[in-house]
Amino acid sequence: MCQLLGMNCNTPTDIVFSFEGFRRRAGLTDTHSDGFGIAFFEGKGVRVFRDDKPGHNSPIADCVKQYHIKSLNVIAHIRKATQGDVNLENTHPFIREIWGENWVFAHNGNLKSLPDMSESLCQPIGTTDSETAFCYIAEELKKRYRKKPSEEEIFQAIQEITQELVHRGTFNFMLSNGEWLIAHCSTNLHYITRQAPFGKAQRIDDDGVIDFNDYAKEGDKVTIISTFPLTKNETWTKMKHGGFVFFKDGEKIREVEGIEKELEDDGTLGCAGVTPCFA
Amino acid sequence: MCQLLGMNCNTPTDIVFSFEGFRRRAGLTDTHSDGFGIAFFEGKGVRVFRDDKPGHNSPIADCVKQYHIKSLNVIAHIRKATQGDVNLENTHPFIREIWGENWVFAHNGNLKSLPDMSESLCQPIGTTDSETAFCYIAEELKKRYRKKPSEEEIFQAIQEITQELVHRGTFNFMLSNGEWLIAHCSTNLHYITRQAPFGKAQRIDDDGVIDFNDYAKEGDKVTIISTFPLTKNETWTKMKHGGFVFFKDGEKIREVEGIEKELEDDGTLGCAGVTPCFA
Repeated sequence: MCQLLGMNCNTPTDIVFSFEGFRRRAGLTDTHSDGFGIAFFEGKGVRVFRDDKPGHNSPIADCVKQYHIKSLNVIAHIRKATQGDVNLENTHPFIREIWGENWVFAHNGNLKSLPDMSESLCQPIGTTDSETAFCYIAEELKKRYRKKPSEEEIFQAIQEITQELVHRGTFNFMLSNGEWLIAHCSTNLHYITRQAPFGKAQRIDDDGVIDFNDYAKEGDKVTIISTFPLTKNETWTKMKHGGFVFFKDGEKIREVEGIEKELEDDGTLGCAGVTPCFA
Repeated sequence: MCQLLGMNCNTPTDIVFSFEGFRRRAGLTDTHSDGFGIAFFEGKGVRVFRDDKPGHNSPIADCVKQYHIKSLNVIAHIRKATQGDVNLENTHPFIREIWGENWVFAHNGNLKSLPDMSESLCQPIGTTDSETAFCYIAEELKKRYRKKPSEEEIFQAIQEITQELVHRGTFNFMLSNGEWLIAHCSTNLHYITRQAPFGKAQRIDDDGVIDFNDYAKEGDKVTIISTFPLTKNETWTKMKHGGFVFFKDGEKIREVEGIEKELEDDGTLGCAGVTPCFA
């Protein structure tokens, strides 16, 4: 299983404070050591850094830390392999071009019996359930619309296509086109929106502290989405089963709330539902 | 205009010796300062590093140098913008998924009046002629074959599709799927295949010297393809106008020779044909 980290903002923001806590879960405070990846949007372009080494000590992750890239939308992933070998092509996030945009996708979960995509226009490169599911979403979106439709239509279409996949297993995912970020929760996703008045935050994984007053200005809005909360002194919103949130310019603009559901430990929930991933 | 660098080998090889000379042309020994990019295949996966800063002093390029990534196929590009703004989405190499593989493309030249791809299944993300041409190639290949055909059929199809584009301008390009690398020459492309007995090479751009005997072993084959030669004491093969070469496992396995042609300085030839790019 895996863990997800996303960011959506209204001003280019450095994700290093969150990423430094998150990457410790890739081998230090948790066991998601089968590769990591992070994608930063920069305009319509994307910078992607991936490594099949553990995120906590990957030199590529050190490179990410060093350059303090600022972005409006970021998706990161640390992997504990369930399906597919540990190699670069199986490392999230995955990218496809849809309607002349980079779309970035990362998944936490385990899907079984996915559609055969071997003759589709959008085919998986690696062997993960996650990339196959993303290709299915991309293919279905392109079938429905040859040109980019409205955000409302996109949000609606992604919900409908997701419904065709959710019964196949656990399907927490994040998806962004660089303008917005959509999060879907099967089992575990949490988010927090930071805006004025800003305060201090303390990381769970290594007690690192930041005072956002030193970095943010009036009007800034930054939402962080993560499988589990990253800070110990802030209130994170836990998404419900089947919940969808559409973030844009740093805040939630559309939502399907989902339902409370007792999680069953069917072996597809990873670290969720049994023992906490951190203390 | 731009310059191209490619590598195709039969054993994972570190391209840093060539790249270090090449990147000096991005602002020091030449004026290709509008961004750089380099893509390394690793299995079916690709690592891509891009920057819209000049390659010669880009921190991202320093990161590439530092980690000595070894690969069987590499494509790199330094840009001097002709069409499209200087930003990340216009920075080569471009990547698309074709038949479940990463395909990497970089272009040196200038194409006019390209087909409208705004409703195609493969659409450009940026505003360069280069990415639009690559999308055209990808779209046409997918139309012809829903599953990956033989190498012979791929090589033939790419030649035919290229013929539909070459009359639109200058079209030097490199294309790789991680197994092979195809180079097409309109004006300037040179290559060299290094194999036993190995010797020393001296870079043109900064006189750096390497003795390949210290790195290569019997049986290794490494082909380097570049817009202009990178070393001063080796014999590079100059490709002809319309020439195609298909490299695999470090050597040329198929070729369409092209014709000798006096290059006209129509403003699309960049540094070619007028004054040499280096002394």
